[in-house]
Amino acid sequence: MKRIFKGDIIYTSNPKSFEIYEDSYLIVENGVVKSICKDLESISDDYEVLDFTNKLIIPGFVDIHLHSSQYLNIGLGMDKELIPWLNTYTFPEEAKFKNIEYAKIVYEKFISDLINKGTTSSVIYATIHKESTLLLMDLLNESKLRAYVGKVNMDRNTTEDLCEETDRSLRDTEDIILGTMGKNVKPIITPRFVPSCTPELMRGLADLANKYDIPVQSHLSENTNEVEWVKKLHPEIKNYASVYDEFGLFGQTKTIMAHCIYTTDEEIKLMSERGVFAAHCALSNYNLSSGIMPVRKYLDYGVKVGIGSDISGGNTLSIPQSIVSTIQASKIKWLESGKELYPLSFSEAFYMATKGGGEFFGNVGSLEKGYKADFLVIDDSNITNHNEFGAFERLQKYIYSGNETNIIKVYVNGERVK
Amino acid sequence: MKRIFKGDIIYTSNPKSFEIYEDSYLIVENGVVKSICKDLESISDDYEVLDFTNKLIIPGFVDIHLHSSQYLNIGLGMDKELIPWLNTYTFPEEAKFKNIEYAKIVYEKFISDLINKGTTSSVIYATIHKESTLLLMDLLNESKLRAYVGKVNMDRNTTEDLCEETDRSLRDTEDIILGTMGKNVKPIITPRFVPSCTPELMRGLADLANKYDIPVQSHLSENTNEVEWVKKLHPEIKNYASVYDEFGLFGQTKTIMAHCIYTTDEEIKLMSERGVFAAHCALSNYNLSSGIMPVRKYLDYGVKVGIGSDISGGNTLSIPQSIVSTIQASKIKWLESGKELYPLSFSEAFYMATKGGGEFFGNVGSLEKGYKADFLVIDDSNITNHNEFGAFERLQKYIYSGNETNIIKVYVNGERVK
Repeated sequence: MKRIFKGDIIYTSNPKSFEIYEDSYLIVENGVVKSICKDLESISDDYEVLDFTNKLIIPGFVDIHLHSSQYLNIGLGMDKELIPWLNTYTFPEEAKFKNIEYAKIVYEKFISDLINKGTTSSVIYATIHKESTLLLMDLLNESKLRAYVGKVNMDRNTTEDLCEETDRSLRDTEDIILGTMGKNVKPIITPRFVPSCTPELMRGLADLANKYDIPVQSHLSENTNEVEWVKKLHPEIKNYASVYDEFGLFGQTKTIMAHCIYTTDEEIKLMSERGVFAAHCALSNYNLSSGIMPVRKYLDYGVKVGIGSDISGGNTLSIPQSIVSTIQASKIKWLESGKELYPLSFSEAFYMATKGGGEFFGNVGSLEKGYKADFLVIDDSNITNHNEFGAFERLQKYIYSGNETNIIKVYVNGERVK
Repeated sequence: MKRIFKGDIIYTSNPKSFEIYEDSYLIVENGVVKSICKDLESISDDYEVLDFTNKLIIPGFVDIHLHSSQYLNIGLGMDKELIPWLNTYTFPEEAKFKNIEYAKIVYEKFISDLINKGTTSSVIYATIHKESTLLLMDLLNESKLRAYVGKVNMDRNTTEDLCEETDRSLRDTEDIILGTMGKNVKPIITPRFVPSCTPELMRGLADLANKYDIPVQSHLSENTNEVEWVKKLHPEIKNYASVYDEFGLFGQTKTIMAHCIYTTDEEIKLMSERGVFAAHCALSNYNLSSGIMPVRKYLDYGVKVGIGSDISGGNTLSIPQSIVSTIQASKIKWLESGKELYPLSFSEAFYMATKGGGEFFGNVGSLEKGYKADFLVIDDSNITNHNEFGAFERLQKYIYSGNETNIIKVYVNGERVK
């Protein structure tokens, strides 16, 4: 049986413009978009119509970089840069996830807020702990959200209680891969970043990625001190990206690198060649005084770019707030670059937050035919009252000034999760 | 009779640190803070206690630069810079306020949202229209909010339907001054900015400001094109600030200048000498690709700085979102300045959004003895759940990740308005 959703449908199939179908019908079959039409006359078989007239129907948001275990730390320690922030706030919090009871409390709250804020697909860092990582994956499976989850790997330069033995780190990772096969929520190989992974660990993780065809995520060139540190740790390798590449973790399987602020042109070119996704985390990059990623340059080089909330370096799970910050940051970059790197348009940033990041999952993040039916129903009546705005203006107003209370329903694979 | 409010009280009396009184009593008499104490034993006379145990009690927010008439335009046209944005979106919207019915609909919504978002004091631009400006002042008086409202003056370089005759502009302004004497909501002289005011108009407005001791507000050095334009209009005057000064609108009475991004050191020094307030509007400055104000430099020069949402250049009335953006922008400025202009701390930005801007009104924006009892009750239980945080951490988490649904009560002069 088909399910049909009536409303003002708007999405991006490319970064340059919106597809807009006002007062139309979104037809969903087996969790996938079948078509959008203006009337239902041509449809002969059984169907159920859910009427969201005057509401916006938009793709669910895609968050390709966030740390679920840092959820309770949101908004804390924003007076520090990356490395001291990790040591003072983040590592002590992550160490608590050895305790599965604690993990359960945080992860249940995290998932419920993820749904409330309309994020239907996400690529997540858990912690080094196998049990609580498996728990997070179970809870996400129950929630029906779409996700990749990474057990974090670290065997050097971290606090004592988060530093793993290399063998154990690899064994736990493989256990998770084997234990979650065939489930909706998938594992992703997650070396935290070069400074906290020995060559042996990186090589071992690359072997697992290849053996089981598992994707990879990590951090790249977020902070100048971090870049210097990597140079000291691997003086024989020409740049940061090439360290990952040398150890087989840079596009050998599907890969996301987060931040990418101080990356050289040579590294960006390598990302483009290898199909490595960049996760842009504007809010986090502001908060930790990291800098502004030159997104326009990546797009010009043909790199795929998605958006990451990067909680709790980022201060909110809200992807609309990240869209706004992404556009704002690109405007400052435009000024900084002597008006060379042109600012991102609203459609470009919206695309990044939906179909752009969604491509990491496959046909996700759009409402074109054949795409997963992941979408939000937005009641924007408290934002737009009185003036008669079209769907494009209403979407802008919702993204720039709305919040999660405007999201009245959330669907994943055509099934309601909020 | 006294009214006593129990809760976790936190505010800034200076920019460097917070005053924190957990589980304490805020004692209010005749709309003014009398004291804060740990127990009530010493209080002998009649009182009523309102129990907000486990809730935060913080000063109401102060917004010293916003355009009420642009409220319905929030989130629109953010792909433009200042001058084209004014001509395409802003001036056509402002022209609608000739219609008093339209004004009533927008202003009622605006005031209700101002209260919901916890802004208890604001310094507002209306439009050129006398009737709708008087209506806004009446509605604000009814709401009990604290406000200055300016009828905008423009007699050159604007659209035909917003361009006033100089005499009429001055006469309408004086009518408003005379018609609102003795009321809570006060008028403020509001030449829009130098490009839209002839020397004759500026001189006439300065005369009114002096005659009735009325404060002044305008815009200063928001955009490089605007600065160039002013130079062309007044080649005989050495800089933008000095144009206002020459015509008697730069601190001769209490004055606010908004934006101040491209101001020279000489101009900043003049602001400091004249006690001119700077309204920092980080979100608007991002959205209109204007640039980042070097706030640290102003503070170092001893200029008083408050925060403005600057809707609809800014994309939200929420002052917490402006606080976050203010801190973030200062971090980017720190990087841009070669780490010379040190980032703003959380307490500095919170101070700017409360007591800093509040000083324009008098004893406003703090919960010290003798200050107006303008405060918010914050239920942050959905943000802080599980972990035991102190009031300082809870405030950070609310500002960085909360929203208006956390504000459960709003008081002005000790009276409840939400």
